[in-house]
Amino acid sequence: MKASILTIGTEICIGQIVNSNAATIGAKLTQLGISVIANSSIPDNLSQIVSEIRRLNDISDLVIITGGLGPTQDDITKTALCQYFECEMILDETVYQFIENLFKSKGREVSDRNRAQAFIPAKAIALPNYAGTAPGLLFEHNGKMLVALPGVPYEMEHIYENSLKDRIQFVLEQSNSEIELHKTIRTYGIFESNLADLIGDSDNIPNVTGLAYLPSASGVRLRLTVQSRDFDSAETKINEAVAYLESRIGKYIQSYDEKPIIDYISKLFRTNGKTIAVAESCTAGLLGGELTKLAGSSSFFLGGFMTYSNGCKSQLLGIAPDIINDYGAVSEEVATLMAKNVREIFKSDIGISITGIAGPDGGTDTKPVGTVWFGLSYGERLLSSKQIFPGNRDAIRNRAVFYALNMLNNLLKEK
Amino acid sequence: MKASILTIGTEICIGQIVNSNAATIGAKLTQLGISVIANSSIPDNLSQIVSEIRRLNDISDLVIITGGLGPTQDDITKTALCQYFECEMILDETVYQFIENLFKSKGREVSDRNRAQAFIPAKAIALPNYAGTAPGLLFEHNGKMLVALPGVPYEMEHIYENSLKDRIQFVLEQSNSEIELHKTIRTYGIFESNLADLIGDSDNIPNVTGLAYLPSASGVRLRLTVQSRDFDSAETKINEAVAYLESRIGKYIQSYDEKPIIDYISKLFRTNGKTIAVAESCTAGLLGGELTKLAGSSSFFLGGFMTYSNGCKSQLLGIAPDIINDYGAVSEEVATLMAKNVREIFKSDIGISITGIAGPDGGTDTKPVGTVWFGLSYGERLLSSKQIFPGNRDAIRNRAVFYALNMLNNLLKEK
Repeated sequence: MKASILTIGTEICIGQIVNSNAATIGAKLTQLGISVIANSSIPDNLSQIVSEIRRLNDISDLVIITGGLGPTQDDITKTALCQYFECEMILDETVYQFIENLFKSKGREVSDRNRAQAFIPAKAIALPNYAGTAPGLLFEHNGKMLVALPGVPYEMEHIYENSLKDRIQFVLEQSNSEIELHKTIRTYGIFESNLADLIGDSDNIPNVTGLAYLPSASGVRLRLTVQSRDFDSAETKINEAVAYLESRIGKYIQSYDEKPIIDYISKLFRTNGKTIAVAESCTAGLLGGELTKLAGSSSFFLGGFMTYSNGCKSQLLGIAPDIINDYGAVSEEVATLMAKNVREIFKSDIGISITGIAGPDGGTDTKPVGTVWFGLSYGERLLSSKQIFPGNRDAIRNRAVFYALNMLNNLLKEK
Repeated sequence: MKASILTIGTEICIGQIVNSNAATIGAKLTQLGISVIANSSIPDNLSQIVSEIRRLNDISDLVIITGGLGPTQDDITKTALCQYFECEMILDETVYQFIENLFKSKGREVSDRNRAQAFIPAKAIALPNYAGTAPGLLFEHNGKMLVALPGVPYEMEHIYENSLKDRIQFVLEQSNSEIELHKTIRTYGIFESNLADLIGDSDNIPNVTGLAYLPSASGVRLRLTVQSRDFDSAETKINEAVAYLESRIGKYIQSYDEKPIIDYISKLFRTNGKTIAVAESCTAGLLGGELTKLAGSSSFFLGGFMTYSNGCKSQLLGIAPDIINDYGAVSEEVATLMAKNVREIFKSDIGISITGIAGPDGGTDTKPVGTVWFGLSYGERLLSSKQIFPGNRDAIRNRAVFYALNMLNNLLKEK
């Protein structure tokens, strides 16, 4: 079963917003085993929308459209759908009643513009939107499905989960289509090209129809793809492929899914009952922000310092100004003292520190932009590590956060 | 001049990553006055890539491709380009030398796989990539341009800014194309449909060829579009349109561009020479991370505390445990003391604090999840504010950071 995603809106083409809706829908369809073969965004232009609907409908079994269903003049998706399906707009009584009630419950006046949201293409079924005024629209025609959803992310997701997913799954099962399944393997501490050399030709990996390398600040992810007649046999195939990869790159494998590393760290902390405090210089809170991303982080994250200036490294963390002067704020000496002292101040089990040069200024020959020192204090141990990260200020700061999380993950995994 | 953007990679179609590259390029082309008419993502499939290049090249004057230039087997953009342009792959000596030197400088071995990056389609010009091994590729053919850039965001941006932008601008000027210009107006405190009622039919707005409404959590943005023969006349046209809108919705207008608020704040800080320190509870460093996002932040950001546990609110910020017990950690009393005390400790001009319930747990009837208190200490003043933010944990923490930045912006704007 082949699917296409069409996101409508000039704001996407001109880069005013990042297209997260396409990713959300892509991920949801992929979970069902459907292949997403095209992902297209076009401006709010009627003739372009109609012809893009035609093109995508021709090459796919399922087209999901988002955007352009709102109450203002630039929202023309319904008009385009009427043109494409050659039908009129009609009033949907259920939607009409819902909008009246929604506004009444919020004490707001219903304007004609809001009421117009209850008009839908005659050939469509309205999919209820409990979070807003624009219903989803489902067209089933010639054995194909076409769906239009509002562009507001939580409205879109709500309609998908409640009114669409089961229907798509049913049609998928009826069609006896092949299932396409993906599996992600996260690696860390190895470059993409070296990883590829270790793995060799992807044809040697049993069962896979695709192997992709996805480098990022948090390491290189591998994505395996298999195709099979059903979910169970696809799972078996993918497990064989994973076993083969483990034999080749086992020591670089960090985890087997899309979960961010903070998921593992949070779980390890909750299991072992340890606590942590952080001292951040160049990242100025980003590590703390990441450590507290998930609910329940108060059980292990005690707090920390953003010691951005040298003065406060001395004042708050008790690092002698002489040490900072002699070795520099970005040094092994300062990094380890930051980790050790923040741990003592917070009386935590673990202290971790980051101090570096995020740039674009401040680099020297011996300490170029991207140089970051890490310190980690735990029990009797005091670890340190120096990295020189590539990229711009944002990239360097993000890489530093992930490097620190990885150090932490390795430490926590030991016990 | 019409442009299309093609992002290559199964990871985009299946929603494994969000397509930020397309937004980056879209924004850059839009700044030049070029219309982006299509924005397409397809999987790593050779025949699909070739036919999509053909389709986009047929409808556009400029096609920008990103992704699939890496060193591994799933990177097939170069092969697709050779097929489409009917040419061989040849060794580019300059690129070859650059890769050798890059690896040597980092003390890494150059593998055959890395060297293969120096092979490029014979009909392409290599655009130097100083941040990685894959050069950009420029094809000029039949009065059209086609460019392939690496998918790593900072490599892509680097090549665009240094080797591509001027060339595109030159071709644009030579072509005497119409310029398309957009202007964003940020509004706050009014619903999309009410805004549309106030503005009325977009045909009444002088000069505009497009008016779009972009609702978001931080307000509704309006986007005006005009077309003209050059930049200056387009500017004049857009200013007339803005004046018309000011007469209709003036009191809801917040600002006139896309810049994130941290840009304004950083500039205000640098102008007035003030300094700041932060105390964060539920956001645990996210505000500090945002305040230090831009280069030069060390001139105003001194540092701060992540006081996640109640214990460290007392220990580090000197807030009496009784006050925390009596009023709760999420209270006006604690928020204002956090702001006041962090300012005293850091001897900064401004102290700002965030303390709240990010959820999903910890809410009560009187303090539901989403309740956040803010404190701001400056001179003799001690401000506070309570907000109840909707959404999940991530959304609440982000909204809290955004709200704190807004308080700060309002304060800094005063002088």
